[in-house]
Amino acid sequence: MSKTKVGIINVTGYAGVELARLLYQHPQVELTSVTGRSAAGQKLGKVSPHLASIDLTIEAELGDVDLAFSAMPHKESAKEVIPLLNHDIKVVDISADFRLKNAAEYQSWYGFTHSAPQLLEQAVYGLTELYRSQVASAQLVANPGCYPTGAILALAPAVKEDLIEPDIIIDSKSGVSGAGRTLSLGTHYSEVNEDVSAYALEGHRHLPEIIQELKLLRPQQLPSVTFVPHLIPMTRGILTTCYASLTPGKVAAGKKGEEEVRQLYLDLYKDEPFIKVVEFPPHTKHTWGNNLCLIHPAIDHRTGRLIVISCIDNLVKGAAGQAIQNMNLMLGFPEVTGLEALAIYP
Amino acid sequence: MSKTKVGIINVTGYAGVELARLLYQHPQVELTSVTGRSAAGQKLGKVSPHLASIDLTIEAELGDVDLAFSAMPHKESAKEVIPLLNHDIKVVDISADFRLKNAAEYQSWYGFTHSAPQLLEQAVYGLTELYRSQVASAQLVANPGCYPTGAILALAPAVKEDLIEPDIIIDSKSGVSGAGRTLSLGTHYSEVNEDVSAYALEGHRHLPEIIQELKLLRPQQLPSVTFVPHLIPMTRGILTTCYASLTPGKVAAGKKGEEEVRQLYLDLYKDEPFIKVVEFPPHTKHTWGNNLCLIHPAIDHRTGRLIVISCIDNLVKGAAGQAIQNMNLMLGFPEVTGLEALAIYP
Amino acid sequence: MSKTKVGIINVTGYAGVELARLLYQHPQVELTSVTGRSAAGQKLGKVSPHLASIDLTIEAELGDVDLAFSAMPHKESAKEVIPLLNHDIKVVDISADFRLKNAAEYQSWYGFTHSAPQLLEQAVYGLTELYRSQVASAQLVANPGCYPTGAILALAPAVKEDLIEPDIIIDSKSGVSGAGRTLSLGTHYSEVNEDVSAYALEGHRHLPEIIQELKLLRPQQLPSVTFVPHLIPMTRGILTTCYASLTPGKVAAGKKGEEEVRQLYLDLYKDEPFIKVVEFPPHTKHTWGNNLCLIHPAIDHRTGRLIVISCIDNLVKGAAGQAIQNMNLMLGFPEVTGLEALAIYP
Amino acid sequence: MSKTKVGIINVTGYAGVELARLLYQHPQVELTSVTGRSAAGQKLGKVSPHLASIDLTIEAELGDVDLAFSAMPHKESAKEVIPLLNHDIKVVDISADFRLKNAAEYQSWYGFTHSAPQLLEQAVYGLTELYRSQVASAQLVANPGCYPTGAILALAPAVKEDLIEPDIIIDSKSGVSGAGRTLSLGTHYSEVNEDVSAYALEGHRHLPEIIQELKLLRPQQLPSVTFVPHLIPMTRGILTTCYASLTPGKVAAGKKGEEEVRQLYLDLYKDEPFIKVVEFPPHTKHTWGNNLCLIHPAIDHRTGRLIVISCIDNLVKGAAGQAIQNMNLMLGFPEVTGLEALAIYP
Repeated sequence: MSKTKVGIINVTGYAGVELARLLYQHPQVELTSVTGRSAAGQKLGKVSPHLASIDLTIEAELGDVDLAFSAMPHKESAKEVIPLLNHDIKVVDISADFRLKNAAEYQSWYGFTHSAPQLLEQAVYGLTELYRSQVASAQLVANPGCYPTGAILALAPAVKEDLIEPDIIIDSKSGVSGAGRTLSLGTHYSEVNEDVSAYALEGHRHLPEIIQELKLLRPQQLPSVTFVPHLIPMTRGILTTCYASLTPGKVAAGKKGEEEVRQLYLDLYKDEPFIKVVEFPPHTKHTWGNNLCLIHPAIDHRTGRLIVISCIDNLVKGAAGQAIQNMNLMLGFPEVTGLEALAIYP
Repeated sequence: MSKTKVGIINVTGYAGVELARLLYQHPQVELTSVTGRSAAGQKLGKVSPHLASIDLTIEAELGDVDLAFSAMPHKESAKEVIPLLNHDIKVVDISADFRLKNAAEYQSWYGFTHSAPQLLEQAVYGLTELYRSQVASAQLVANPGCYPTGAILALAPAVKEDLIEPDIIIDSKSGVSGAGRTLSLGTHYSEVNEDVSAYALEGHRHLPEIIQELKLLRPQQLPSVTFVPHLIPMTRGILTTCYASLTPGKVAAGKKGEEEVRQLYLDLYKDEPFIKVVEFPPHTKHTWGNNLCLIHPAIDHRTGRLIVISCIDNLVKGAAGQAIQNMNLMLGFPEVTGLEALAIYP
Repeated sequence: MSKTKVGIINVTGYAGVELARLLYQHPQVELTSVTGRSAAGQKLGKVSPHLASIDLTIEAELGDVDLAFSAMPHKESAKEVIPLLNHDIKVVDISADFRLKNAAEYQSWYGFTHSAPQLLEQAVYGLTELYRSQVASAQLVANPGCYPTGAILALAPAVKEDLIEPDIIIDSKSGVSGAGRTLSLGTHYSEVNEDVSAYALEGHRHLPEIIQELKLLRPQQLPSVTFVPHLIPMTRGILTTCYASLTPGKVAAGKKGEEEVRQLYLDLYKDEPFIKVVEFPPHTKHTWGNNLCLIHPAIDHRTGRLIVISCIDNLVKGAAGQAIQNMNLMLGFPEVTGLEALAIYP
Repeated sequence: MSKTKVGIINVTGYAGVELARLLYQHPQVELTSVTGRSAAGQKLGKVSPHLASIDLTIEAELGDVDLAFSAMPHKESAKEVIPLLNHDIKVVDISADFRLKNAAEYQSWYGFTHSAPQLLEQAVYGLTELYRSQVASAQLVANPGCYPTGAILALAPAVKEDLIEPDIIIDSKSGVSGAGRTLSLGTHYSEVNEDVSAYALEGHRHLPEIIQELKLLRPQQLPSVTFVPHLIPMTRGILTTCYASLTPGKVAAGKKGEEEVRQLYLDLYKDEPFIKVVEFPPHTKHTWGNNLCLIHPAIDHRTGRLIVISCIDNLVKGAAGQAIQNMNLMLGFPEVTGLEALAIYP
């Protein structure tokens, strides 16, 4: 049986090389074309030595493929993606360009006028666990941001089941690879090592995505979300700690209530291959290199607050892994194909 | 002029060696005696090579000093400290043994019956900025925990001035040295490196300390505090992010309100030598090795929440540095003596 | 076709869990039994959450398997392995217990009298690239140490082809996981982070292994080897830098000579699936999590010295990966089976 | 008594800010002027928040000072320094521009023609321990490179006393701050973290400096030096491991010889305030933030080789600290003034 041909636009960034790594071990697809503007003409293994086993030359234009991943920066990505859609090629876009349903938000959050607002409706938000069937029939999937993936999966059961009040605090801690391969003082080794800091207090671009999805989960009550991301000295991983008051009367007091919440999470996620509801506060290291999202709901009994902690590898479930999870559905393969590797530990 | 003699009980832990380092450069005191149970009889520089310039032998019993620091673990510390008090020696206790005013809390949080509850009233809680005059005349100072130091300093102006509602979330990120020098799998290099996790969701021992002090700052309204500490892969530093809703009508809307809050913090801390209210989210690295606490108050305009971020070096302002700051007051020296070194960067 | 049953003795250490991780994705074998003394009775996924997908309970005794890996410490391993051999079970021993051919060296380097010296001759030293055919027919394979793997592969072509003089310096830099999961101050996070040091200057236990193999590669001229390992603040990876003077007249002067050396390395390793002779100084990160050994030979033209740098992931090619590579040969599978995953980067 | 005025040219790099930090606590000098091209006009504390206590504005041109430090890049530094010399201002140049005595080497190693070769003779190589008296009377001191500082101090006694043969291997491991604050992919956090690599195999620019000084220590026998630097994932510190064969007959065999070597090192360095000959392999962490160089000589008894390991903080003894040590001598202050702080540990 011949494999399905797939390609990666802008393979040279961290999401791009992670896609290439994961696709290399995928039994049903073959990576046949990769692009990268500044590196066009070079062997992939020259630019990324860990990919030397993949015998491809980086091209200026994507070759003939059935499905393409775009790992371009936002605003640039739409320009690359739209012509592909017109040629009936399926696309998983890792950029933010098709995640928000309201075109006006691109102006306010990203500072540009969206060039194809009509596609926003058509695009499926690729948080697979929430939109599985839509993804399966989509031509264009907007792969979620890394922070929204962890945050929404942590909060979805509680919001959907009305367990919590709408006042929500999301405090995330991210490894540095989330900032990508572009050089900046903020990601310079000597500056980040032995340091932690918060950023984007005025509003991170992933916030509208989180709000959009939480609203859809409970349209009757608008969430009031504060989201603060932090940069910590490690390469991969996002841990997200969410806080919200329990809706009065929804769960029993004490340990019994905690068990009810836990059971609700277990029930809602029981068929999810990539979500594990765990009994103890999870460690990002337990997801290093794989597609899992670990979730731990707990109750602060002194205050009646729900605390939900999730963790993911930002480059896998937070980017390339989820993109392949979506691809699997779009191409009719079992959802876990090529994504079954365990985390690397320690 | 002869220097005042000081000693350190249990010099071998991280707080102990940090005290020794800082005292070495103190112009008014001389470190004349150090103890350490398992290391008694050895040269200090043998056990801690970076202290080789301090020519002392670790003893089993503290020698004749005017003031002693206890860096013993809780429960053990009180046993060492009480006899010293009876000999009119001044004491700064770095353990938790005299921080809580309510003796019953030692039973519930630390699992032991306090042996000298009468001293709890006498002891001064050594968060210098809040208890400066009491520290100056104290015989026994209970040096605050590392988390409470950062959290209380971040919240004190807002609580005292009634700026925020009593529902408070405190999310802290700590380097690993806070867990001390005692071996455990949770502080084993290969386990902590490239990892972040939350812990003590059921209630960290520093929580009652935080609540006790916040209550004292606004007795008319009890705070409802959720505190979640996280361990991140670095050696030193704690960053604490606090969240609370603004009391309606207290500050103006928009940027103006943020400026009002900022001005209030600046005013309240304007004479504090070790607190800097900063304009941007602070980095723990900017306090590496020194006694500063950096504080950044901000407003999340979308939700009307106050976000206050503080950072300290957990072993300096969070332990040994603050202990010396207290000692300076107790001995009548200028508060900043011996503590003026800048942070080491990068 | 039914899978071959394999087991792991002492699954709880880092080599053990890495074996379990890699075997999980092996298409031809099934991990059916794992042991671990202190953890017996517990679910594997409880002790090692990243292995939760493997549904096994840790046992006190190994169950019925066709091949067993022993990840026991030295001296203990032989005790476990010998009964298995008597039951015709194939064994890959990751400990040092069968690596040295001369039983007396166990006394001098490891401090114990070997209990089964007759097995030392029978055991095959499992540096696959040097002993491929013997491994294929072996019942007992002694998996090499992590340092010897990188050092011998770096030096073998030069020694075998008489390119270098016998005076050899080997300077290795290792991540901390090589020291295992056993707690010690030397692997305590706050001690190792932001630190580098040499150790075992009086002679590391991997030295006799290196000498034994270099002697076998050029019996006519005994090597004089200085080996100094260093511990650096990272979890995985060993980089080894080898220095030796070129044998006069063996290669041309200047760039031409360097090209000759490079070609010789390329030729000797041309069929090796896990060795890549690279054009630039290699990075351990390019082997993170996979079974490759990258080798870069270069000439210091000013001094006429050969410099060869190799790098591996100490837990994969330096332990569990190479053990599976050996297992593949012993069981008649293609050598690369289950080991084709690319390195994880960044 | 009024303090001596000093200035820093190009304060914004890592050597520059480290100079500012150390000078801040110097009792005899006052930092009165700092320059920095792109940052001119900004407050120093704005650009470098950890220096906020220093109330200076970054200028385009250096103000009136008695002594200036130049932390400019090579080639640029000479241009800044020469006019100062003409105005009788003393200068410590941290760049390489006056380190090499042979002007032709600037062409071959740095790729430019030296603009003032006559100054090369006049400049004193500021490895204080070797050139103390010349430094004291110098107008221009060329502060050594970070690698040469550690390497030459490790080898000087052995070379000077003819203990070793001229074939010398120097294998250095450096933290990332040595590469400075300029952005590059090689110092991007996600690339360096969990990685080690060698670089500059074709010849590092610090090599001619090392050779120049070793030649001067033993003019009768030219050294043949191979020097390979490695980058390891930490911010500060250089550990250098040196290897050379012992001159036959120079020291006794066995432990006695090792003791003789050790005693020779102790004797030669006995009056050095910043050199400690230590009994065990040193850790860079024991020099974190201070001006010490730790040295450990050992003998590999199996091969008759001398191994000498040294470590320093590359930004202190390897740059700013040594510069101030030189300044102290040039201005007639005790050599240790302002440099007595202990290392920060852990």
